[in-house]
Amino acid sequence: MHAEPRSERVELPGRATDVLLGEGLFGTLWAALRTRFPAAQRCGLAIDERVASLWPLPPAPADLHVLDLTLPAGEEAKDRDTLARLQDRWIGLRRDEPVVVIGGGAALDVGGFAAATVRRGLPWIAVATTVVAMADASVGGKVAVNHPRGKNLLGTFHPPSLVLSDVATLGTLDARERSAGLAEVYKCARLSDAGLLAVLREGEPQDAAAWIDALHRSVAVKARLVEADERDEGVRRLLNYGHTVGHALERALGNERMRHGEAVAIGMHAAAGLAVARDLMTAAQREEQHADLERLGLPTALPGDVDAVTLHRALGLDKKRTAGANHVLVLPVGAAGARVVDDVTDAELASILP
Amino acid sequence: MHAEPRSERVELPGRATDVLLGEGLFGTLWAALRTRFPAAQRCGLAIDERVASLWPLPPAPADLHVLDLTLPAGEEAKDRDTLARLQDRWIGLRRDEPVVVIGGGAALDVGGFAAATVRRGLPWIAVATTVVAMADASVGGKVAVNHPRGKNLLGTFHPPSLVLSDVATLGTLDARERSAGLAEVYKCARLSDAGLLAVLREGEPQDAAAWIDALHRSVAVKARLVEADERDEGVRRLLNYGHTVGHALERALGNERMRHGEAVAIGMHAAAGLAVARDLMTAAQREEQHADLERLGLPTALPGDVDAVTLHRALGLDKKRTAGANHVLVLPVGAAGARVVDDVTDAELASILP
Repeated sequence: MHAEPRSERVELPGRATDVLLGEGLFGTLWAALRTRFPAAQRCGLAIDERVASLWPLPPAPADLHVLDLTLPAGEEAKDRDTLARLQDRWIGLRRDEPVVVIGGGAALDVGGFAAATVRRGLPWIAVATTVVAMADASVGGKVAVNHPRGKNLLGTFHPPSLVLSDVATLGTLDARERSAGLAEVYKCARLSDAGLLAVLREGEPQDAAAWIDALHRSVAVKARLVEADERDEGVRRLLNYGHTVGHALERALGNERMRHGEAVAIGMHAAAGLAVARDLMTAAQREEQHADLERLGLPTALPGDVDAVTLHRALGLDKKRTAGANHVLVLPVGAAGARVVDDVTDAELASILP
Repeated sequence: MHAEPRSERVELPGRATDVLLGEGLFGTLWAALRTRFPAAQRCGLAIDERVASLWPLPPAPADLHVLDLTLPAGEEAKDRDTLARLQDRWIGLRRDEPVVVIGGGAALDVGGFAAATVRRGLPWIAVATTVVAMADASVGGKVAVNHPRGKNLLGTFHPPSLVLSDVATLGTLDARERSAGLAEVYKCARLSDAGLLAVLREGEPQDAAAWIDALHRSVAVKARLVEADERDEGVRRLLNYGHTVGHALERALGNERMRHGEAVAIGMHAAAGLAVARDLMTAAQREEQHADLERLGLPTALPGDVDAVTLHRALGLDKKRTAGANHVLVLPVGAAGARVVDDVTDAELASILP
């Protein structure tokens, strides 16, 4: 017997996303596609190679011609070469024929970007198979590939019309991947859902129903921020909590060493340091967050061997930066809440590096 | 003494475009950029090589670092290589630092697409230097490059924040380019501006003021359709008048042989044939359009040596196509007006090929 599914709708002008969270949704893909695109004779398909080996897709309907491509596992797929291969594979589709992208955040990023740029936007269905993809990458429409100069520097906004998040697939992730994904769930809780924060205080969700509930609440937080500010110029920036220092750490260490969510956890702990210094939260509240993150299996301290030059450059603390301009940072407020502040000085930013 | 400038605003959710039409606007670029982006320390610049040789830019302000690139002239620029070169050149810009793209429709298409995809969208200023760019490419936000499988197959929507259309630059176009551009102006008039139609009945505009007036009215027609239907799923499709047969002709002949606007003129004459057969317009009204197009220096008859196989395939009249589905076509109605019809049969479509 499967746990009860949940759904959430993200409303953007002319482009809504339905998010469905459940157990066993992987097997319902073709039926869901047929319901939404009854006239489609063809569709595109991109699947992460690791997911393909663990979760064989049910056979496609006989009357649906599938233009499929297997993606390199993980972050390796997020480059211009893979983007061009996907575009070439899907270029013959019409604008009422969807593409399906299956995998974690990286697969959804590159697959969604290809969908966005073929014929000025093919509709797409995201099948999320990691915690970070279910909580973060599938909602909000940001799609991208990496550039030699940095992560996600080439991209656009193109929300999927449907997200299927099958929590059964989380069973084949290793514990470290699940923990890293929970950093994004924790972040959303910390921004505006004290109830979810209390749930996460018990540690990682222990069964499918608990995963569905936590992910659903996290998606709801993100959905409201995205609806209010799709282009990331206002309140959506709250979702950058932990990401300023986090991104810099990823750049300094590389994603082999440090997962995105781990870097974000360290970044949240660092930002909380400045929040205490500015009297936005108490030292006890920061310590509570610290204990929460550790209970979820997340790091809060900087590795001893981090390349300080790269870290400082990524934070704009190197000499090349224009003097005088302040930094923008998201700071936690109280027990649950946050605020974007734009007057962080070089000295303040340097002081919070863990 | 310069002719009076005109302006038009295209309102899309969160992304308005101000269109300024005038004489001598080329020299005002840097001032316009500074007004809109007072804090920018850098900007991007892409300019068509032919335009660069004819219209030297005034020097940029000393406090503005310009990341510039010269584009191959015309359609040759619209490929993935040029797109990647632009992205690489502009990748370091921040989202409040604009790019400027100067040239005809091809330059605006590829430059706008690069702007759309760097950091999920840099703001951009279009400086249009051809009739087709002023009337069509600069309004509506469609940006794209070509793919070996067809024109404009890779692209997205990313309207410029400002369009500067300097009609002085039209003086260095040859007559054939001006005529081809007027096909798009005529099309907009035919859709919903009987007054503009009467103006064009006198032939090509004869001075700067007349060009500004005709282009302004044409832009206004397009702006209202784009505002009502940015994603091209409803009334915006009226702008495809003449384009179904026109695109097929371009594919069959290549753009060296036939300009886009010339193909559209032939396509409008062809569509009018079906409109007469369906009693949507009189034979006399079709003949009037025919005379109008000839007066503007535009062709209406198919060249004798067109590759019929390619033409039929591009129109979906080849055997590969699924039987039963009808074609969508824009048909002119009465003396000025048009309608999207979706029940055009194979036989009807084949019958109107000139």
